[in-house]
Amino acid sequence: MYFVGANLEGAVLVVDGKDTALYVEPPHPDDAIWFGEKPTLDELASDLGLDVRPLERFATTESAALLPPQDAESAFFLADLLGRDVEAGGGDGLAGPDLALADAVIELRLQHDAAAIEQLELAAKVTAEAHAAGFAATRPGVREALVRAAMEAVIVRNGMTTAYGSIVTVHGEILHATTHHRELGQTDLLLADVGAETPEGWAGDVTRTWPVSGRFSTTQRELYEVVLSSQRAALAGVRPGARFLDVHRAAGRELVRGLVELGVLRGDPAELYESGAGALFFPHGIGHLLGLDVHDMEDLGDRAGYAPGRTRATSAGDRLLRLDRDLSPGMCVTIEPGFYKIPTLLDDPDTVAEWSGAIHRPTLDRFSDVRGIRIEDDVLVTEDGSRVLTRAIPKYPDDVEAAMRASVS
Amino acid sequence: MYFVGANLEGAVLVVDGKDTALYVEPPHPDDAIWFGEKPTLDELASDLGLDVRPLERFATTESAALLPPQDAESAFFLADLLGRDVEAGGGDGLAGPDLALADAVIELRLQHDAAAIEQLELAAKVTAEAHAAGFAATRPGVREALVRAAMEAVIVRNGMTTAYGSIVTVHGEILHATTHHRELGQTDLLLADVGAETPEGWAGDVTRTWPVSGRFSTTQRELYEVVLSSQRAALAGVRPGARFLDVHRAAGRELVRGLVELGVLRGDPAELYESGAGALFFPHGIGHLLGLDVHDMEDLGDRAGYAPGRTRATSAGDRLLRLDRDLSPGMCVTIEPGFYKIPTLLDDPDTVAEWSGAIHRPTLDRFSDVRGIRIEDDVLVTEDGSRVLTRAIPKYPDDVEAAMRASVS
Repeated sequence: MYFVGANLEGAVLVVDGKDTALYVEPPHPDDAIWFGEKPTLDELASDLGLDVRPLERFATTESAALLPPQDAESAFFLADLLGRDVEAGGGDGLAGPDLALADAVIELRLQHDAAAIEQLELAAKVTAEAHAAGFAATRPGVREALVRAAMEAVIVRNGMTTAYGSIVTVHGEILHATTHHRELGQTDLLLADVGAETPEGWAGDVTRTWPVSGRFSTTQRELYEVVLSSQRAALAGVRPGARFLDVHRAAGRELVRGLVELGVLRGDPAELYESGAGALFFPHGIGHLLGLDVHDMEDLGDRAGYAPGRTRATSAGDRLLRLDRDLSPGMCVTIEPGFYKIPTLLDDPDTVAEWSGAIHRPTLDRFSDVRGIRIEDDVLVTEDGSRVLTRAIPKYPDDVEAAMRASVS
Repeated sequence: MYFVGANLEGAVLVVDGKDTALYVEPPHPDDAIWFGEKPTLDELASDLGLDVRPLERFATTESAALLPPQDAESAFFLADLLGRDVEAGGGDGLAGPDLALADAVIELRLQHDAAAIEQLELAAKVTAEAHAAGFAATRPGVREALVRAAMEAVIVRNGMTTAYGSIVTVHGEILHATTHHRELGQTDLLLADVGAETPEGWAGDVTRTWPVSGRFSTTQRELYEVVLSSQRAALAGVRPGARFLDVHRAAGRELVRGLVELGVLRGDPAELYESGAGALFFPHGIGHLLGLDVHDMEDLGDRAGYAPGRTRATSAGDRLLRLDRDLSPGMCVTIEPGFYKIPTLLDDPDTVAEWSGAIHRPTLDRFSDVRGIRIEDDVLVTEDGSRVLTRAIPKYPDDVEAAMRASVS
């Protein structure tokens, strides 16, 4: 899809010096009956501006470098075609020419060109419409599935697909909640992590958290502002040359500062952050690469997300970060801080032992109407800083409330 | 899913005389953070009423009979676990104990019990709601994707998934159209083949064809009535003891009879049908098994659909029939005749050569506002005949028009 700009099942692109060709199975006569007329190889060649040949003319090139296939079906297909062992999703096990090819493709795909940026903007636009529909569908007493349906209907209506399994939940503290059967309570916050994918495969990835009633309670607003402030700190750091780990840490430090200000944590914010107290409430990375895949190139393991020589940190605060490169113009990343009250972490004596003096339980208990908040935007690194592709989606408390009031009237 | 009643990824059910046990991977501590608390093995055992053991206690049983996995990922998983070669989707290549097990499971799954029928009814109910939403969303000038979105939103809202890739198209002559970008024209018919699948995996599969304007033209109504009459003929034959091939042929014969009556075909209806003229306009089977899969057990090849000793006919009219068993109470089938003007067939001199005298082109051309019509219902074989599970969905022309008028007002 990246090189050809089209989703062609069972096609193989061979790049061999000047002899670049796409090998595809010619349409079967029955295809027209079942799936409509498909382009002939000549028409495909003209559409794609490529030399297109029937798959049966593919000559086994055992020595060719190969990009690792994304699934087992493709691995079988390629193993059969090439006459050699092929493993699916083996990014971290790559070696020799395959490794060199993967690294070259990563270099290319890290920086999006104008056509790719146009696609990301298109995905962002429909993602924004979907979130507007989510606000509009929200009301106490309906189920999460109803809001999910309203958001996904916008995506389908626009001829797109969801870029990943939608998260629409009143239990925002479950980071990747997969169920949607719960009823929206009057005092709940609803967290929706929903993104559109264009027909050419480019992804949007946005999270908003809003009050079911249309109005944040004081406690909800206070914690929401802390997450928003954390996102602002991260966004301020997104620019060419910045190291993504520093962006992640800026968000974490600001989150801890805010929690100290609210009295949820007690102590020196800088020391608390260094001790890992932030990861108790924000146990994931600040973001990841976004592109043709929602976690772009993650099928190549950490090679894509981590610059040569860098590996994942071991601390609780940093080990889940999917990206640690120096940013450069054309890169697109998500910025998605969160605050979560996760029982597995906060109610586990071993986990909290180190910070038992720092967590002020009576204050934390005061925020009983907050379980999880995440605010996520898609950000393009530009020559002179960055541009938020998803800025049209309300995220400031007053804007969220206004959007919800507008959708009701 | 069939034996356990739950969708458990990476679980293995072992039935060994009296020692029936389910082996599953115990929840990983991080699971709770990402996906919410999962049941412990003890809780699962209590929920399912089964002996549940950790997967690491699974002892390799190379001689065990195995049901063929449905995809390559599962084949890899099972090959690794059993220490032997495992092929995906290899229904027709089964042998030895695997074959005996497959046949035994087919025998079981052919007849649905009360719990399964309840699930099929649930799927039919939500499928009916989806079709009602499809009628309501239809209007000239919108795209097919908008109607598809409205129908799928009902399914998602009800906590279900689509049972298969939805077909929503003004080009009904493309049997499995996969695109949804076309605009609905004032004089078009819209064909929607959309079904819901319950969380336990049971499928609905329904097609309706309706006029975008809300009113059939005379020509549309005439051809629609022919398809309806063909469906009526098939439905009349669905009862215990009937051979499904005969149901298929009854539908084809009635379709040809109707086309002769309209003057589209000329000649003796019985002779025309025997010569295969019906397959020019109806090149697929009258239906298939419906159950836990929309083409139930088709992953086992024709073993499920074809009774022992029966194989697919070679004639154009019969070779695409997916099912040829004698019907018995508890079986569920689709009944889905159609009429299609498929250019690949009707404009190909070789294909039509045999019937060049029989097809009356000027009359066929008169039906220029019809490209494809299909009417599909889900039918349960009962002790004394059959019951249409999807009878709530309007299909008679007056009912369709009334439903569309109601949805507009």
